[in-house]
Amino acid sequence: MVMGSLFNNEKKPLICVPITAGTNANLMTQLSDVIESEPDMIEWRADFFEQLYDTEAVLQVIEKIKRKTGIPLLFTIRSEKEGGEPVALNESEKVDLLVNICRNTAVDAVDYEVENDREFVENVRDAAKQNGVKLILSYHHFSKTPIDQELLKIGVKMEFFGADVAKIAVMPQSRNDVNRLLNVTMQLDDMLQIPVITMSMGELGAISRVIGYTYGSRLTFAVGVESSAPGQIPITKLRNAIEAVQAIASV
Amino acid sequence: MVMGSLFNNEKKPLICVPITAGTNANLMTQLSDVIESEPDMIEWRADFFEQLYDTEAVLQVIEKIKRKTGIPLLFTIRSEKEGGEPVALNESEKVDLLVNICRNTAVDAVDYEVENDREFVENVRDAAKQNGVKLILSYHHFSKTPIDQELLKIGVKMEFFGADVAKIAVMPQSRNDVNRLLNVTMQLDDMLQIPVITMSMGELGAISRVIGYTYGSRLTFAVGVESSAPGQIPITKLRNAIEAVQAIASV
Repeated sequence: MVMGSLFNNEKKPLICVPITAGTNANLMTQLSDVIESEPDMIEWRADFFEQLYDTEAVLQVIEKIKRKTGIPLLFTIRSEKEGGEPVALNESEKVDLLVNICRNTAVDAVDYEVENDREFVENVRDAAKQNGVKLILSYHHFSKTPIDQELLKIGVKMEFFGADVAKIAVMPQSRNDVNRLLNVTMQLDDMLQIPVITMSMGELGAISRVIGYTYGSRLTFAVGVESSAPGQIPITKLRNAIEAVQAIASV
Repeated sequence: MVMGSLFNNEKKPLICVPITAGTNANLMTQLSDVIESEPDMIEWRADFFEQLYDTEAVLQVIEKIKRKTGIPLLFTIRSEKEGGEPVALNESEKVDLLVNICRNTAVDAVDYEVENDREFVENVRDAAKQNGVKLILSYHHFSKTPIDQELLKIGVKMEFFGADVAKIAVMPQSRNDVNRLLNVTMQLDDMLQIPVITMSMGELGAISRVIGYTYGSRLTFAVGVESSAPGQIPITKLRNAIEAVQAIASV
């Protein structure tokens, strides 16, 4: 499948751009712009979508996106607790929607937060596995960078749950926190069988979005039209910086 | 003085290009090329110079360089033990030459290895201080990256001896060694009053020459004409990568 081969290929790092519009019409305009910027993956941050409560509407958006582009699509409802928008669904309803999407759409991957109740995580995982959808288990902390051991444990937990990809995004409070996150990335890349995606957020962490790949982070998020997390960089600028670094460090 | 204001200014990182020719004529050709590449500092790696035994010849080269360009000049006789070329002078004769240069030329800075006998280090330091020449005390290891504590101790020793700048260049054997060197740089930048210059050498460490400044390394060495240490990058490529990173991370 597209997503599987995506993470198996040699391109490092992959670049993902989120779409964040609230309405159907705006989503399609954003999508056209994002496609033009040629990312390796598109993330639909559905927590921004005003009709998230309307399952049919959500499934239709996914089908429209998939008809419009062959770029692998990641579906995400980021929880408010981990940096997302407030949504009308409770956790159980979110899980139902994710399961429905895995079963009934051509989505390539879904993101779900590993800190949710075990039963929820397992339900999303089972639906993903049974329908050939890749599962990104994720962890976000928007005010600090937890200690190394905690981050390592979170990564191991993601693999244990059966994630296809482990994603960790944390906020630095110092240069040292940025360095620690990169160090943890290197350790997780050694420890886990699955690909790792990490980032140190905010302005202080922006450098991690460029050089994280040299520590083993396989994908970096860039801004197409609108930022979906603090510190995200416009895709052209980010690609330019990555290529300039790659011209030097062939790691 | 030029060199003092150089390290006080806001440009980060400064770029230094070495000249490494063996003969007087070749030195002047190299110098012209190097000047064209507009580095912030030029290092004359005099251990490559065939007439190093001839004090007059050495003093004359320095005067010729200083007449030709206002770019701050660093004079270095790198020892064979720390990665330099074999030279005809013993340590005591090298110190005499360095003292002579401090007294009788317009050189801006001299480099001397901190691991030399204390008396030698102090002689070079005194001559530098008395003549307004900046002193870079340096440490190089071409096969490994010593443990953090040892590197921190070396940095502290440099400041203790009265260095104006502390320079540490070490070889990584793993990605972890590169990360450790960057971490040590950050710690030394916090601990010391004087500017710090560090690099992780070889291909594996090349990234440190680009991003080291975000950890507090104030200067990076680039290749003008000929490389003087493993992993050095052509100045145009390096400048391009640094600027692309700076367009993103304003650290």
